[in-house]
Amino acid sequence: MKVDLNCDMGESFGLYQLGNDEEMIKYISSANIACGYHAGDPHVMRKTVQLAKEYDVAIGAHPGFPDMMGFGRRYMTCTPDEIRDYILYQVGALREFAAYYQMELQHCKPHGALFMMAMDDEKLARAILEGLARVSDKMIVFALQNSAVEEVGKQLGIRVAREVYADREHTIDGSIVLTRTGKAIQNYEEMAKRVVRMVKEGIVLTPDGEEARVHAETVCIHGDTPGAPVLIKHIYEAFREADITVAPIKAG
Amino acid sequence: MKVDLNCDMGESFGLYQLGNDEEMIKYISSANIACGYHAGDPHVMRKTVQLAKEYDVAIGAHPGFPDMMGFGRRYMTCTPDEIRDYILYQVGALREFAAYYQMELQHCKPHGALFMMAMDDEKLARAILEGLARVSDKMIVFALQNSAVEEVGKQLGIRVAREVYADREHTIDGSIVLTRTGKAIQNYEEMAKRVVRMVKEGIVLTPDGEEARVHAETVCIHGDTPGAPVLIKHIYEAFREADITVAPIKAG
Amino acid sequence: MKVDLNCDMGESFGLYQLGNDEEMIKYISSANIACGYHAGDPHVMRKTVQLAKEYDVAIGAHPGFPDMMGFGRRYMTCTPDEIRDYILYQVGALREFAAYYQMELQHCKPHGALFMMAMDDEKLARAILEGLARVSDKMIVFALQNSAVEEVGKQLGIRVAREVYADREHTIDGSIVLTRTGKAIQNYEEMAKRVVRMVKEGIVLTPDGEEARVHAETVCIHGDTPGAPVLIKHIYEAFREADITVAPIKAG
Amino acid sequence: MKVDLNCDMGESFGLYQLGNDEEMIKYISSANIACGYHAGDPHVMRKTVQLAKEYDVAIGAHPGFPDMMGFGRRYMTCTPDEIRDYILYQVGALREFAAYYQMELQHCKPHGALFMMAMDDEKLARAILEGLARVSDKMIVFALQNSAVEEVGKQLGIRVAREVYADREHTIDGSIVLTRTGKAIQNYEEMAKRVVRMVKEGIVLTPDGEEARVHAETVCIHGDTPGAPVLIKHIYEAFREADITVAPIKAG
Repeated sequence: MKVDLNCDMGESFGLYQLGNDEEMIKYISSANIACGYHAGDPHVMRKTVQLAKEYDVAIGAHPGFPDMMGFGRRYMTCTPDEIRDYILYQVGALREFAAYYQMELQHCKPHGALFMMAMDDEKLARAILEGLARVSDKMIVFALQNSAVEEVGKQLGIRVAREVYADREHTIDGSIVLTRTGKAIQNYEEMAKRVVRMVKEGIVLTPDGEEARVHAETVCIHGDTPGAPVLIKHIYEAFREADITVAPIKAG
Repeated sequence: MKVDLNCDMGESFGLYQLGNDEEMIKYISSANIACGYHAGDPHVMRKTVQLAKEYDVAIGAHPGFPDMMGFGRRYMTCTPDEIRDYILYQVGALREFAAYYQMELQHCKPHGALFMMAMDDEKLARAILEGLARVSDKMIVFALQNSAVEEVGKQLGIRVAREVYADREHTIDGSIVLTRTGKAIQNYEEMAKRVVRMVKEGIVLTPDGEEARVHAETVCIHGDTPGAPVLIKHIYEAFREADITVAPIKAG
Repeated sequence: MKVDLNCDMGESFGLYQLGNDEEMIKYISSANIACGYHAGDPHVMRKTVQLAKEYDVAIGAHPGFPDMMGFGRRYMTCTPDEIRDYILYQVGALREFAAYYQMELQHCKPHGALFMMAMDDEKLARAILEGLARVSDKMIVFALQNSAVEEVGKQLGIRVAREVYADREHTIDGSIVLTRTGKAIQNYEEMAKRVVRMVKEGIVLTPDGEEARVHAETVCIHGDTPGAPVLIKHIYEAFREADITVAPIKAG
Repeated sequence: MKVDLNCDMGESFGLYQLGNDEEMIKYISSANIACGYHAGDPHVMRKTVQLAKEYDVAIGAHPGFPDMMGFGRRYMTCTPDEIRDYILYQVGALREFAAYYQMELQHCKPHGALFMMAMDDEKLARAILEGLARVSDKMIVFALQNSAVEEVGKQLGIRVAREVYADREHTIDGSIVLTRTGKAIQNYEEMAKRVVRMVKEGIVLTPDGEEARVHAETVCIHGDTPGAPVLIKHIYEAFREADITVAPIKAG
């Protein structure tokens, strides 16, 4: 059994450090790299691609709203055309650093408010997917199940990988809450078990204790979640015990 | 006889309009497109690439310092590594829009203070050229003759196209003054003749009246120079009379 | 009879020019000066304050969302606390340039999406008004009638000046549509008459031809509306004929 | 004997944390607060002013170049007029938050490359000091001794406080090196003794072992220097033993 393990990376900026990239990279199979709009800068992007190459981790773009001050977590009423152009801009910038290290972009996962907005808005999902498909026929898009992105991806024949979260709560339809709740991480053992169950059985408990059915093609863990480096080791270990291999989504 | 005619384009930003792209595009063979650091934004970039495609004009990146407020005209003491990364970022962003319209990037011409800095600083020129060569083996770089960029280009075997200016004064060694002087444009006829002479005879008069020898592989005219749309028509006409064909540098 | 005539100003940025400040300043009594977030920069702000002083025009802050690329016209889901801090930041920056020219800030009028958002959201309106009242007991806030800002202003005892628009359509409750419609300006004579009627009779026709009752304490005209310099002359002239004096709101 | 102890503060930005403000604030008498150009944002600025008020620490503006990506450490060839306007903008923004908490700005200390540039360039120093003097007659400016700022301050009758550094090396004329060297901090005891000697005897050893004469009116320690919270406790303790009272410069 295989699953992809992804982490947002390259979210440092100038002198500012964020996340635990050097530690997280050891355990993941896919890195979502910030592209300078909500976080990251050209120097950080290049170093992050280099780091991913060193650890043989697949890379993808993690484009966000042009809102560094809000870390891309605030909704902006941009038009689908504007957003598609913002995404192409950021994807292209990262693709150049990938080329610099003879790598290819595996995937694209929009960040924060842009991610959540695309999940709900079919016109936006269509603009993004059509834009990405036009520049690359191999790009995989990460999305929540039952989202507009998954639906449009099916219509357009674009590969969408369904994502679950190690450090966020899930709703009954497999969606997530953007901002983390205190509940989400309390016990690393329990968290790791929860992830294994999502991957193996396709089930996760909602905060209300209901069983939500999920398709866990790729599991996200945030590098700036407190305790993330410890949590990911637990997950990695739990995967090993459960005979789950961590492998990039493209290898799926 | 052939020469390339280039113009900085896509320097509008958001609601702000700059230049006369719709008019200039009719006469030029190469467009240097701003990439969002000193000017331009993703939407403007895409529209400008689209415009170039429509008029069958070759496109190149026009990366600048991250200084929108100063329009990239202020020197910043960034390191060669930082600048190479800024350039790769911007080139990549533009390359994605080129791909969106099935076009390729022909060239790269740094903007403003970054351009002038690269002309003088051999370490910087090397960082830029090595960076660009690593991501693309076909990229042509525009530079002043007798500059560090030309010199390093020779050493590395990278194609550098030497540039002269229709609307700037030249020094005795063929360099230019970054900021325009009042003298530069007074009489369109005279200006156009000056350009023809640079192309045909390889000679331009300096402000002191000396004859400077120049290699005019590509001629730049700035779209925001007052009267630019009129000037370029005069140049175009003068080229026609002198049997000079305007063609992109890659066709040279 | 007196009315204030206000215009957004100082919306140029770096090399980018916007509006017709030098022309509009001759006719207005209050200038809303952009503060570097959605438009404007420190140099433009200082020059605009200087211009207002020269023409003896009252000045106010015109703070917006931190979104230069979208000219502050896109809604951003910032919290009331964030927005109050953004407004204080921008107001303070402008107040310093006012001090530089021995002037005082008369008013504050949020810009674009921030303006519209404050009109509808009582919590936001409260955060803004409480913030402004805490730093200045004389600041007048411009707002639409029947808005959250007007209502909260009454509760807190803060002076709110009700605004109508010379170049936008009004709804039946005296609100406006943020983006201009083609209809709004067609005939300068008619436009000027419409403004006079708003001021004198307190009535404006909605796009549906209904009579909306409005309290026109200050009339806004946008400097970047095509034909704005011509329109404002017509309005000025129509005011003169109707014995309406243009005077800053503080003089009211 | 009295001396001022100052620390750069409020250099966090959005989600990004920098420095150890909560710890450092306990020991200092003056806080230099970043103003949103090289670091800081409106929210961080307000919280930092609030923190300073809580600990009864005097506050000043710490304006920098508009270069968040380079943390204001890169020289930019802005004109004196541009820089004066950038400084007024930032000072004003901070002054508004000071007013929000019924505080006054004690001082202004330019940041990074802007600081070093002002120390060397008389025209720039004059533009800054004249600008600040025009908006406030009480503002104290922090500067290196023997600098252009000190000299111009004398000419204009503006109070300049001479600054030494706890965590930087000094040259023979009392200037400093902008970027920290490894040598600067090795042994907290020794560092603290060095500071006491600067204050008491007016002497500091240069890296070459020469005795430089310094006027230590205010001592700077950087909050993001590794070990800063430990170092400042040592300094505080050493001051106590040496009967040196830490007091804001305005109390001097």
